[in-house]
Amino acid sequence: MHSVKPAYATGWEVRAAARAGEWTEPTRGLAPGYLQAGLVAVPRDLAYDFLLFCMRNPKPCPIVDVTDVGSPEPRRAAPGADIRTDFPGYRIYRKGVVEAETTDIMAHWHDDLVGFLIGCSLSFEWALEQAGIGMREKHEVRGNPIYVTNIQCAPSGPFEGPMAVTMRPVKGSQVADAVRVTAALPLAHGAPVHVGSPDSIGVDLKHADVNAPLPLEPDDIPVFWACSITPQIIAQRVKIDFMITHSPSKMFVTDLKIGSV
Amino acid sequence: MHSVKPAYATGWEVRAAARAGEWTEPTRGLAPGYLQAGLVAVPRDLAYDFLLFCMRNPKPCPIVDVTDVGSPEPRRAAPGADIRTDFPGYRIYRKGVVEAETTDIMAHWHDDLVGFLIGCSLSFEWALEQAGIGMREKHEVRGNPIYVTNIQCAPSGPFEGPMAVTMRPVKGSQVADAVRVTAALPLAHGAPVHVGSPDSIGVDLKHADVNAPLPLEPDDIPVFWACSITPQIIAQRVKIDFMITHSPSKMFVTDLKIGSV
Repeated sequence: MHSVKPAYATGWEVRAAARAGEWTEPTRGLAPGYLQAGLVAVPRDLAYDFLLFCMRNPKPCPIVDVTDVGSPEPRRAAPGADIRTDFPGYRIYRKGVVEAETTDIMAHWHDDLVGFLIGCSLSFEWALEQAGIGMREKHEVRGNPIYVTNIQCAPSGPFEGPMAVTMRPVKGSQVADAVRVTAALPLAHGAPVHVGSPDSIGVDLKHADVNAPLPLEPDDIPVFWACSITPQIIAQRVKIDFMITHSPSKMFVTDLKIGSV
Repeated sequence: MHSVKPAYATGWEVRAAARAGEWTEPTRGLAPGYLQAGLVAVPRDLAYDFLLFCMRNPKPCPIVDVTDVGSPEPRRAAPGADIRTDFPGYRIYRKGVVEAETTDIMAHWHDDLVGFLIGCSLSFEWALEQAGIGMREKHEVRGNPIYVTNIQCAPSGPFEGPMAVTMRPVKGSQVADAVRVTAALPLAHGAPVHVGSPDSIGVDLKHADVNAPLPLEPDDIPVFWACSITPQIIAQRVKIDFMITHSPSKMFVTDLKIGSV
């Protein structure tokens, strides 16, 4: 893990570093103000069911871009980019099991795949900070704790299962502002899906499913936003035949400014 | 045309009247506060391209619900309803031509069809009135003037062509409020796509493509919202093999309150 966060200013710079193999860590805090996105790539015959899953579950799966069948270029989000190389890390899922973790997917890509870019909540941390809502440990290169909840997604075809969330501690006096700021950013998951009372969504804060837990300080309220890792949780549970995704917290940084979309 | 608008209070009441053949006119002003939606039904093998078209063009095509393949029930928008009977009017398009206008589609439905409900701007007139923005001729049962613009939609598969818009005259002092109110209602087309200067989007106000034009009064600014008839315009231009739609301004009134979605 890098101890110092590099000063990438734009999505292009992060993607170039990822493509060159110079950045293989989480993208938290990089290129402030740019929309970050996760990946789900599936074969064409699963693409309709997955797209409909996203439409039915816009909180965990806000669609930022969809590539044409076989094309690795996300023309809306980052013209000229290549989703096969421009993430810092990928996972190859086969029948719901992570078969490989890689830093590019050139060897796994084929002409029948469709790539979906799903907005990520790392995008809005900058907006929260602009509103005076500090992110704890923001200078660390690490991902936020992620939990699998008991909230069920609306199913579509084989895609059926629970929603995953990220947790950020927010001071009680700032919860309303955190809701207001993020509600305006639907492509970054929008408003929280839950505030406080982790028990009632089946979450034990001490046991994160991904990344390390973050202990609460006095007056910290745990605030939960839907997470773009949800399709991976579902792929694991229903054993989707083949799916390529980003590695958790290692996102594609688009050319889109978060406030513009 | 009915000269007096009936006092249907809910989506259910309008749908029941449409199903019974008792209401076959435009739904403007009916069931105030309920989200109204248009229809696009296409065979399964066109459904992915159309769904992606909607995602890429959320202003003209905000998705309210998508039925399972072969099912006529929009389970999210109106559980128990039937999209084959609950619109006041339908159009059957074959190779881009209106083959029939009907009041139900039982004879045209088949097990391979997917029904898309697309939000309609008639939904937000009630919200505008609540904000003190009166709709001209609101007590008439008629649709707003609809124009085909020179704004090109983002294409998806065969779906490629211009955006259609509805026009409403708004007083200059109320344009900002009209934007604010409708921006909060993305499923009803959201904020206007254009304000004033009809020439620059290829619109001649005197020549509406659908419904009668509405002359401007002093200080009226023409305000243009994207229109859910857009897929019909495109079907006509690219000659889509088979598509069932609503008749213009004759919408499905859902069970969803506009402010809740």
